[in-house]
Amino acid sequence: MVRAGIIGATGYAGAELVRILSTHPGVDVTVLTSRQYAGVPFDAIYPAMTGVVNRVCEETHLERICERTDVVFTALPHRLPMSMAPELIANGKKVIDLSADFRFKNAAAYEAAYEPHTAKALLAESVYGLSEVFRPEIERARLIGNPGCYPTSILLPLAPLVASRLVDVRSLIADAKSGVSGAGRGASLTTHMCEVNESFKAYKVGVHRHNPEIDEVLGRIHGEPVAITFVPHLVPMIRGMMSTIYATLAQSASLAQVRQCLTDYYAPHPFVRLIPEDRLPDTRNVRGTNFCDIAVRQDPGTGRLVLISAIDNLVKGAAGQAVQNMNLMEGFDQTDGLLQTPYPV
Amino acid sequence: MVRAGIIGATGYAGAELVRILSTHPGVDVTVLTSRQYAGVPFDAIYPAMTGVVNRVCEETHLERICERTDVVFTALPHRLPMSMAPELIANGKKVIDLSADFRFKNAAAYEAAYEPHTAKALLAESVYGLSEVFRPEIERARLIGNPGCYPTSILLPLAPLVASRLVDVRSLIADAKSGVSGAGRGASLTTHMCEVNESFKAYKVGVHRHNPEIDEVLGRIHGEPVAITFVPHLVPMIRGMMSTIYATLAQSASLAQVRQCLTDYYAPHPFVRLIPEDRLPDTRNVRGTNFCDIAVRQDPGTGRLVLISAIDNLVKGAAGQAVQNMNLMEGFDQTDGLLQTPYPV
Amino acid sequence: MVRAGIIGATGYAGAELVRILSTHPGVDVTVLTSRQYAGVPFDAIYPAMTGVVNRVCEETHLERICERTDVVFTALPHRLPMSMAPELIANGKKVIDLSADFRFKNAAAYEAAYEPHTAKALLAESVYGLSEVFRPEIERARLIGNPGCYPTSILLPLAPLVASRLVDVRSLIADAKSGVSGAGRGASLTTHMCEVNESFKAYKVGVHRHNPEIDEVLGRIHGEPVAITFVPHLVPMIRGMMSTIYATLAQSASLAQVRQCLTDYYAPHPFVRLIPEDRLPDTRNVRGTNFCDIAVRQDPGTGRLVLISAIDNLVKGAAGQAVQNMNLMEGFDQTDGLLQTPYPV
Amino acid sequence: MVRAGIIGATGYAGAELVRILSTHPGVDVTVLTSRQYAGVPFDAIYPAMTGVVNRVCEETHLERICERTDVVFTALPHRLPMSMAPELIANGKKVIDLSADFRFKNAAAYEAAYEPHTAKALLAESVYGLSEVFRPEIERARLIGNPGCYPTSILLPLAPLVASRLVDVRSLIADAKSGVSGAGRGASLTTHMCEVNESFKAYKVGVHRHNPEIDEVLGRIHGEPVAITFVPHLVPMIRGMMSTIYATLAQSASLAQVRQCLTDYYAPHPFVRLIPEDRLPDTRNVRGTNFCDIAVRQDPGTGRLVLISAIDNLVKGAAGQAVQNMNLMEGFDQTDGLLQTPYPV
Repeated sequence: MVRAGIIGATGYAGAELVRILSTHPGVDVTVLTSRQYAGVPFDAIYPAMTGVVNRVCEETHLERICERTDVVFTALPHRLPMSMAPELIANGKKVIDLSADFRFKNAAAYEAAYEPHTAKALLAESVYGLSEVFRPEIERARLIGNPGCYPTSILLPLAPLVASRLVDVRSLIADAKSGVSGAGRGASLTTHMCEVNESFKAYKVGVHRHNPEIDEVLGRIHGEPVAITFVPHLVPMIRGMMSTIYATLAQSASLAQVRQCLTDYYAPHPFVRLIPEDRLPDTRNVRGTNFCDIAVRQDPGTGRLVLISAIDNLVKGAAGQAVQNMNLMEGFDQTDGLLQTPYPV
Repeated sequence: MVRAGIIGATGYAGAELVRILSTHPGVDVTVLTSRQYAGVPFDAIYPAMTGVVNRVCEETHLERICERTDVVFTALPHRLPMSMAPELIANGKKVIDLSADFRFKNAAAYEAAYEPHTAKALLAESVYGLSEVFRPEIERARLIGNPGCYPTSILLPLAPLVASRLVDVRSLIADAKSGVSGAGRGASLTTHMCEVNESFKAYKVGVHRHNPEIDEVLGRIHGEPVAITFVPHLVPMIRGMMSTIYATLAQSASLAQVRQCLTDYYAPHPFVRLIPEDRLPDTRNVRGTNFCDIAVRQDPGTGRLVLISAIDNLVKGAAGQAVQNMNLMEGFDQTDGLLQTPYPV
Repeated sequence: MVRAGIIGATGYAGAELVRILSTHPGVDVTVLTSRQYAGVPFDAIYPAMTGVVNRVCEETHLERICERTDVVFTALPHRLPMSMAPELIANGKKVIDLSADFRFKNAAAYEAAYEPHTAKALLAESVYGLSEVFRPEIERARLIGNPGCYPTSILLPLAPLVASRLVDVRSLIADAKSGVSGAGRGASLTTHMCEVNESFKAYKVGVHRHNPEIDEVLGRIHGEPVAITFVPHLVPMIRGMMSTIYATLAQSASLAQVRQCLTDYYAPHPFVRLIPEDRLPDTRNVRGTNFCDIAVRQDPGTGRLVLISAIDNLVKGAAGQAVQNMNLMEGFDQTDGLLQTPYPV
Repeated sequence: MVRAGIIGATGYAGAELVRILSTHPGVDVTVLTSRQYAGVPFDAIYPAMTGVVNRVCEETHLERICERTDVVFTALPHRLPMSMAPELIANGKKVIDLSADFRFKNAAAYEAAYEPHTAKALLAESVYGLSEVFRPEIERARLIGNPGCYPTSILLPLAPLVASRLVDVRSLIADAKSGVSGAGRGASLTTHMCEVNESFKAYKVGVHRHNPEIDEVLGRIHGEPVAITFVPHLVPMIRGMMSTIYATLAQSASLAQVRQCLTDYYAPHPFVRLIPEDRLPDTRNVRGTNFCDIAVRQDPGTGRLVLISAIDNLVKGAAGQAVQNMNLMEGFDQTDGLLQTPYPV
């Protein structure tokens, strides 16, 4: 059994890791840490888990964590993981970081969007954990920068098309919509039921920190810098994320080629579902799952390409993809622990 | 492998049976029927199941169903199951009916609340499928009347106390609240998002058909007729049911005795969680699970007993309990297929 | 024009006062205060009010407030109003306090539920502002303890029946349900969208501070102490409150007498709607209004009386009733400013 | 007093007309019709209106309607209004149609999107009721084609910029999001709480019937054909609509010019609020109001223009704008009946 530790187990992504890993056939969750709830049983914080998860949260002592784990998931606000990863890696642990700290190759881009990076040496070897796109590198990695939720939902439909030069990269626009759990478990006016329910709004237009993350990955695939227009919105629901992506077809490219490209690319990847042509994605169809549902349309009036993707922001957009990456790193089947049957409603 | 058929697979309870049974280690789902969607792939109706459930819905031909099943779940509106159960039983099938048709021993009570009963002969042998309370009879049964959602949530806390004569049965009041999925998948003004969201209402006050069902079961346990006051309400959420039950303690009975009675009664039953005394149930803690969470309080001002239970109306209140009953009938572990880890949010 | 000041204008009850008073034909809102947002335009906090309300929030300086107001609404957490009311009253202001500080006649009951009372001298003259029940006293009052939301929804149906001795006061149970805005605008896990939506729960069972408030008022009406069993629940919606009240009819009392009693009592009171006998209350029918909808049923199985009331917790349960009380105190028509037409959805 | 009739008063747009007109100082609502509810009191269908609206719904007899009205609002599915308008106009009534029947100048475009038009003769004189943009024509009109909700939210920000040639019309993309009330009151799976809540989806991508409506109006303003890419989405809320619009600035145009253009254009129009530059629109800020909130941003990475607008789909997107148009036609102040103060939550 692989021994897994979760640093930051009581945030939503951390708790989702607990849920998924607790059913994984090859993993034993040996450590849960929480700054806020050290000493508190996990099921006192998430009472749904009463009788299901019996572990008590503990302080984050890296040394003691190293003794009891093979793989460590860091589900913390950015800045903290980069202070821990060097020691964990040095002790031979595999590290999957769900923050932004190891997503960038370009430290300057990270620092422009976030803050000074204190573990730049690791950026060279860290691998961007978009499982379907960077699988070979992930399999060999010691350190994963697990993608942001928005980037996951935008890159999965776009990466193959950019790689195949089927779209004009100067035309890319991603209009994205997220459920409230994306804002985390911290209490704030932004997550207050009365401020959020029966409400729909845009936020951080053109200035969201996931924008440079998407740009960097697309640029790497394209071979030259790419800038996407990215506008996130908040949806009055708990889980779910949809990205509607607009692109101009490359000259001489066709809708049929786009569909074929995506079909071929994702044929070996069970978690990306190119849904039947007469259907459109709905976030509730991926709720609680690691699926990414994708549909493709061509606007009849303008010929513009429209790509629509749906994920669960906490699963394929965070904890699920993290476990998928661990599966790839540890030689498990990539679906282990991730095939919980979805709910009909 | 036990071969299971689901008659009425595309309503919410039926689809939930599909979800649960598709992960059951000892069951092979061999038949899904749907009047409305015969010939349609199940995943066209529930797109979440794309790539997960690959069966096509078919018409309900009892003969052909009998050839391919060992157990049949009927998830249909009442009246239909009583027209099918005799033939299914005669062909040696075990039948678990999720409608009201086989819940009553007293045909007159059924007919007063519903309509003329056409299979009265089977009422003598049918067993009320409240798994924890009637386990021995369920294990030997050929035909189960699976309890209503409200009765399940009300009887689980009350049955042991009535059996132990710890409460005055003349004092019983159940104020119950259900999510909208309890109204089924049929489109109506009652389930219209704009009529239901940001709304809370009582309905069928004192005249709900689950009232005589509860009365009959409590009366059987008590040994004399019992009448409970039962008021259902509609909550603007999809899944979940809570019952707040008021009772006067029997003379000389104490809160401590009530707690001990419930603790002893449910010790062997993993799906009933008597939650820690400092917590109260929340429907989200049982969402998607077969758990029933129960708390007990005594009102300091009046000494009145307050019992609070939470279930997922589609799981412990319908499909989950039906599978639990099948497990008991077939000699499986009662938790098989029913331990999907709950979601933290 | 009556000059009105609102101390604590940026909480939900305060903001609702701003909304209502801004359309009142006889009132000029001259002061808005906010500890948190002093110096900030009101419409920066509530952007819906852009172009509608142009006032800037200020610090709470009682002296300066007295110069510019005739009536002062205090919409603050309890404890603060009792530190301000004496000075306001001494300066000839009429004070309507939306906290609990002036709701109790019995200081000991207040102190048992809240904390030491520092303005006990005013309790003798303060009037409990349940507009329909204490209208004569309200008209003459200088200081109003505006009722809690739960007490309003429970006392309106019960007060006339207790006064007429049509119900057995030892039998009273109120199962109440509130939208999330009742918890106020403060950010907390309790109001976090992801913790509250798709959730229904009971809280403070038997120990809510509105319990002694209800008991005191019922006791005053009854002439002897009354203890009601009161269980509040949280509904996943923003606004709205429903109370389902159970009572045993007094000997020789009938359902018809109960209906007649309520009809007669509320005939002169436009905000209490005894809805047609074939309907039941729904919180959405009173959303944004000062109405209290009431229905009466008798449980056929037990003869028990069931009273159901619906209010908007922020209007009739707080700001609306406060303005109604001001109308009575100032000699306005009691509906002035309070007849905004309800929304169909 | 102007006598107003509402044909189709019990759908959501019709009921919203009833709400708004019932507070209009210069209007007397004399007729409410309903196919489904003829003979039923309006408040039995919308119980919120109990004691507020006392009229009974009647059958649609045009002759009798003409006798008692000066202005007629038709809030019906398309196809029906074009069968009524000729007779109403011939009898000297002013007609404001909320369907698509009189929105198009180009009958062929209507017929391609809808069905054969049976009152083409009236298309020449009917005026597109986008109040702020076509005010002079509206003031003189006998027949108004009241705009669709999506077109209203998209045209208000775009019309001035297209007119001023500040944006490249080949670049236009509108990613729009609507609450569920836009689907009307008809019960369907699409509006079923359990299918819609906790769900976000795109629908009718590139094939929505509001697309040609937008194209025609933009084309008329631009002087040449315009095709916009338009993708609608469904938001799990009752009311509210947001459009996020992407456009490339015309050569030599600047963000400052765009802002100035909109500021100048809407200076005389109180219902369009160009919100402060540090804020972004939120549908809840316009809920229940006739406001359209607009913000402008320029994406720093690409220079692309992002326009964001929020309306209440039932008010500015339907009934509110219809009343605004009536105000213009009848010489009332355009805000009469439309200044109900918004709710803080």
